[in-house]
Amino acid sequence: MTDRAINFRDKLALIGDHWSPRVIAEMNDYQFKLARIQGSFVWHRHADTDEVFIVLDGAMTLEFRDHAVALATGELYVVPKGVEHRPVAERECCILLVEPRGVVNTGDAGGAYTAPNDVWI
Amino acid sequence: MTDRAINFRDKLALIGDHWSPRVIAEMNDYQFKLARIQGSFVWHRHADTDEVFIVLDGAMTLEFRDHAVALATGELYVVPKGVEHRPVAERECCILLVEPRGVVNTGDAGGAYTAPNDVWI
Repeated sequence: MTDRAINFRDKLALIGDHWSPRVIAEMNDYQFKLARIQGSFVWHRHADTDEVFIVLDGAMTLEFRDHAVALATGELYVVPKGVEHRPVAERECCILLVEPRGVVNTGDAGGAYTAPNDVWI
Repeated sequence: MTDRAINFRDKLALIGDHWSPRVIAEMNDYQFKLARIQGSFVWHRHADTDEVFIVLDGAMTLEFRDHAVALATGELYVVPKGVEHRPVAERECCILLVEPRGVVNTGDAGGAYTAPNDVWI
C-alpha cells in the first residue's frame, strides 16, 4: 500500500508522446490512464466495455458517426460500449481514461496508433 | 446516448450538503460520484471493493490506522478493499469518487453519516 497520492501533473510531465495512454492506478480490475492527445485518432469501438474520458487540461471532441461531443477541462463523458467514436484534439489536450484492464486504445481498429498496453508510469 | 459532456463544476453547484455523494455517470457497473466534504468522516472499510478518491478542488487527508495520505487538487488515491480509512477535510473539499454501483459511503460502519445510495444529479 503506497503512502503517497498520485499527482496528475507530475505524471503527465513524464509523457512525451501523443495517443499512448500510461497506467497510473488500478482499482479492482479497472485502470486509470493518463494520455496526451493531439490531432485526430482513428475511428474505433470497444465491443465489451464503456470507456470514460475526463479532460484534465485543454479541450477535445469525441466524434460519433451522427454527432459530436465537446469536452473542456473538468468535463467527463462515457462512451458506451460498442459505439464507434473518434477522439480529436486541435491543440494538445491532457486526459484521464478509465476502463477495464486490458483494453487496447484502438479497440477493433488496430493500426499505427495502437499503443503498447499496460504501460505504467 | 447523451450528447453533452458532464461538467464537474456545474454538478457540484447542485450539491449543498457534506458527505453525501451524488452519482453523475455510470460506466459498466461502476459509478462516478461527486461530493463536498468537510470535517472528519467515520472510520469504515469496504469489504468487497477498492475505492478511488480524486480531489477536484481543495485538500483532504485519508487517514489509515498506521499512516495518513494527503491529497490536493489534481491528485488521486486508491483505498484498497478491506482497509479501514477515514476521510478528513479541514476546509470544504470537492471530490470525485469511483466505485462499483451499490457501495454505501460508510461501508461497514453505518451510522449518522450514511447517505442515501444511487442518488443522481
